[in-house]
Amino acid sequence: MKNDSGRNMTMLCDFYELTMGNGYLAAGMADRVTYFDLFFRTVPDGGGFAIAAGLEQIIDYIQDLHFGPDDIAYLRGRGIFSEEFLTYLANFKFTGDIWAVPEGTPVFPREPLVVVRAPAIQAQLLETYMLCAVNHQSLIATKASRIVRAAQGRTVLEFGSRRAQGADAAIVGARAAYIGGCAGTACAISDQIYGVPAGGTMAHAWVQMFDTELDAFRAYCRTYPTSATLLVDTYNTLQSGVPNAIRAFNEILKPLGITKCGIRLDSGDLAYLSRKARKMLDDAGWTECTITCSNALDEYLIRDLISQGACIDCFGVGERLITARSEPVFGGVYKLVAVEDADGAITPKIKISENVGKITNPHFKKLYRFYGRDTGKAVADYLCLHDETVDDSRNLEIFDPEATWKRKEVYDFKARELLVPIFQGGELVYEKPTLNEIKAYCAAQVDTLWDEVKRFENPHRYYVDLSQKLWDIKNDLLNGKR
Amino acid sequence: MKNDSGRNMTMLCDFYELTMGNGYLAAGMADRVTYFDLFFRTVPDGGGFAIAAGLEQIIDYIQDLHFGPDDIAYLRGRGIFSEEFLTYLANFKFTGDIWAVPEGTPVFPREPLVVVRAPAIQAQLLETYMLCAVNHQSLIATKASRIVRAAQGRTVLEFGSRRAQGADAAIVGARAAYIGGCAGTACAISDQIYGVPAGGTMAHAWVQMFDTELDAFRAYCRTYPTSATLLVDTYNTLQSGVPNAIRAFNEILKPLGITKCGIRLDSGDLAYLSRKARKMLDDAGWTECTITCSNALDEYLIRDLISQGACIDCFGVGERLITARSEPVFGGVYKLVAVEDADGAITPKIKISENVGKITNPHFKKLYRFYGRDTGKAVADYLCLHDETVDDSRNLEIFDPEATWKRKEVYDFKARELLVPIFQGGELVYEKPTLNEIKAYCAAQVDTLWDEVKRFENPHRYYVDLSQKLWDIKNDLLNGKR
Repeated sequence: MKNDSGRNMTMLCDFYELTMGNGYLAAGMADRVTYFDLFFRTVPDGGGFAIAAGLEQIIDYIQDLHFGPDDIAYLRGRGIFSEEFLTYLANFKFTGDIWAVPEGTPVFPREPLVVVRAPAIQAQLLETYMLCAVNHQSLIATKASRIVRAAQGRTVLEFGSRRAQGADAAIVGARAAYIGGCAGTACAISDQIYGVPAGGTMAHAWVQMFDTELDAFRAYCRTYPTSATLLVDTYNTLQSGVPNAIRAFNEILKPLGITKCGIRLDSGDLAYLSRKARKMLDDAGWTECTITCSNALDEYLIRDLISQGACIDCFGVGERLITARSEPVFGGVYKLVAVEDADGAITPKIKISENVGKITNPHFKKLYRFYGRDTGKAVADYLCLHDETVDDSRNLEIFDPEATWKRKEVYDFKARELLVPIFQGGELVYEKPTLNEIKAYCAAQVDTLWDEVKRFENPHRYYVDLSQKLWDIKNDLLNGKR
Repeated sequence: MKNDSGRNMTMLCDFYELTMGNGYLAAGMADRVTYFDLFFRTVPDGGGFAIAAGLEQIIDYIQDLHFGPDDIAYLRGRGIFSEEFLTYLANFKFTGDIWAVPEGTPVFPREPLVVVRAPAIQAQLLETYMLCAVNHQSLIATKASRIVRAAQGRTVLEFGSRRAQGADAAIVGARAAYIGGCAGTACAISDQIYGVPAGGTMAHAWVQMFDTELDAFRAYCRTYPTSATLLVDTYNTLQSGVPNAIRAFNEILKPLGITKCGIRLDSGDLAYLSRKARKMLDDAGWTECTITCSNALDEYLIRDLISQGACIDCFGVGERLITARSEPVFGGVYKLVAVEDADGAITPKIKISENVGKITNPHFKKLYRFYGRDTGKAVADYLCLHDETVDDSRNLEIFDPEATWKRKEVYDFKARELLVPIFQGGELVYEKPTLNEIKAYCAAQVDTLWDEVKRFENPHRYYVDLSQKLWDIKNDLLNGKR
């Protein structure tokens, strides 16, 4: 089996990770244990939450981390790295610990999606690939979740490979879109590698290859009688395409007793054409014929189409999903939050910024999500120090970290730790869920969010609170008291 | 050498290419020779031209096109393909002809960037990967060209791997950015594979790892005395970062007689901070110290910074380049334009649309670019039938295909064919240029465009005219006369 993620991506790093590594070794800091958080600051499209994705690719990447002779030769040729460092890289093996939020989890700004504890050179080297994987797949999963919610239960298929930003964007993008709620993809290799159900019927070229549209439809129905979806807009949708489709269905499918079939519209006024086509199909007795529509759709257009009474069973969504066109950047960052001394003492680190939103949450942390026991709904997330434990049998006072006088008691809640161990001492300790498990988990977790958090415009801000201890440490660091 | 493009991408296709292929075989059309054009309809960001890129990846892809046993097993498992078709795929070999515009060429809407002549199943199978490669790399090369033009001769580096839409978007995206005019990248593997010069110095984590900022700067200057670029915004740029950088330069570099060094600003008001930093550096005698700036830059922000007198020598451009954030979709399409009968006669095909801009240019075509002999500037492109030849020793009357009464004589011009043979009978006949040759060719060709075509706002529309013969055939097809 070809495996898209099976390539060795060790060298997919920012060059500074190598210059810093060489420098840490020269400064005697190679083995100093560091803690890094991967987190993001804003939800794309002004949404209320994002969907975490990309962990499986990170795992594959880390399990295959190594520098081969060609890599060492390339680096030596650059003329700036010590032989000691090149030897270090030739023997490189990841020995650290990683915790991460499972794929498919709804996540919020400023909470860690991945925590790395590893010697400085190792932890730094992971930065680029981990960010690239998480940023890309979380972006697409989040966008897919929006589009699927807009479709209100109708099927959404991912059709964007041809407009994707390179092969991985197509292949892994289809995986992320599936996690976020799409029912399938047009991309064959994503099915082959990841099991994202792939399907597809015909392009306009099929219709043009035959002498007439009707001949093209007949030929297709003969070859695929049980899965015939005919593209009806090559010449004229209502005057030619739909009537010819009905004629082909009548001629080929009806005698076989087949009632399930479909048409696809790829241009024109989809609201108008789909209503007209629906009536023509129904009048001809093809009430089970589905109507699929495509053509630069996104969550806003889908919402509009539905509100206009469009008769669409399935949306094929291409470029605006696979590139997240309205907001094609997921701004995850990777920041040092602590360093460990030789005796195991952890010193928290903070990145100060004039922009308050860019100040990091220091220290090695845990992340909890609180669910109301009565509703099952998520009520708040809670960041605390690694050695704190939340006892959900008792009420807990939480407060807004940006307005500490806003306090409330959480009661009758169930606390769940979101960061789970992935690697310990360089060994994988996580049982990777299947893609369908991730997808089902994502849907269930999105259901734990209140509608106010899920709406597209001005969603309710979900709270990510800090424990008192963590807040005190952050405040001391900001005030120069540590 | 690991080769990012060395993976077999045969299965990166839309599933419909397989269902159509199976159908063509069933309909006895497998060997029917078809002609497809790959072209785009609009330039991203309202620009006056795009930069073609992605051809090298297409060549690699086609040279490695084949279905392995795993692919056949996967397809058989889908239960809809005939054994005859699976045998066809198992023996699949590309036998067709391909012409393409060389990478780095400025290109315009509705002209073919790639022309494929091949049996129907083969030609159809290429669609998705070719579009993905050309759309992605042309998008990034075009965006890079804009950003580099905005920088007016200052260095632009590509820094976006971590925000790229997957690994290919980072790796091949850096290649496309280099073609479009960037001087280098932060992405190490793009240097290793493609020779895009990679560089990088330090992240904020480097500064935070040391007890003081000054210690961090000293350590870096000691390790890299001849290439020290210090990141000065971890704590406070003007009060701490720049003074500490100057102190480290004075302590470590000055005694070595080194005068070249650099600082990098990654936050804050770059216009203000760069001017202040420049003065502090100059006052301290570090006049050769360069200032690099990064932080969500694009062509508009760079233009603004320069107009505000910012003292910036080098721009590091990340997410807004690597995702082409302002317009992340390059809308290339792949359309059937002709079919060939068994006796070699070519029948032109057209895709009609209610939207005039979506009507295709039919037939097997040639593409010329006309340059004025006096100025060397490009004056118009000219699409004609495959068997027409332009004689540039004589004047030529051309006309606007959308307003045929607008006619003019072109005189004293040099005609150059833009579509060059890449594959003939399945064999590569093209000598691939090096990446540096492509980059130099791109810069030279952009120089052949008038400034009015190159401006960002309301650029002059460059003409892509049709020959009279081609226009007549198109008009006849639209009027149902063929």
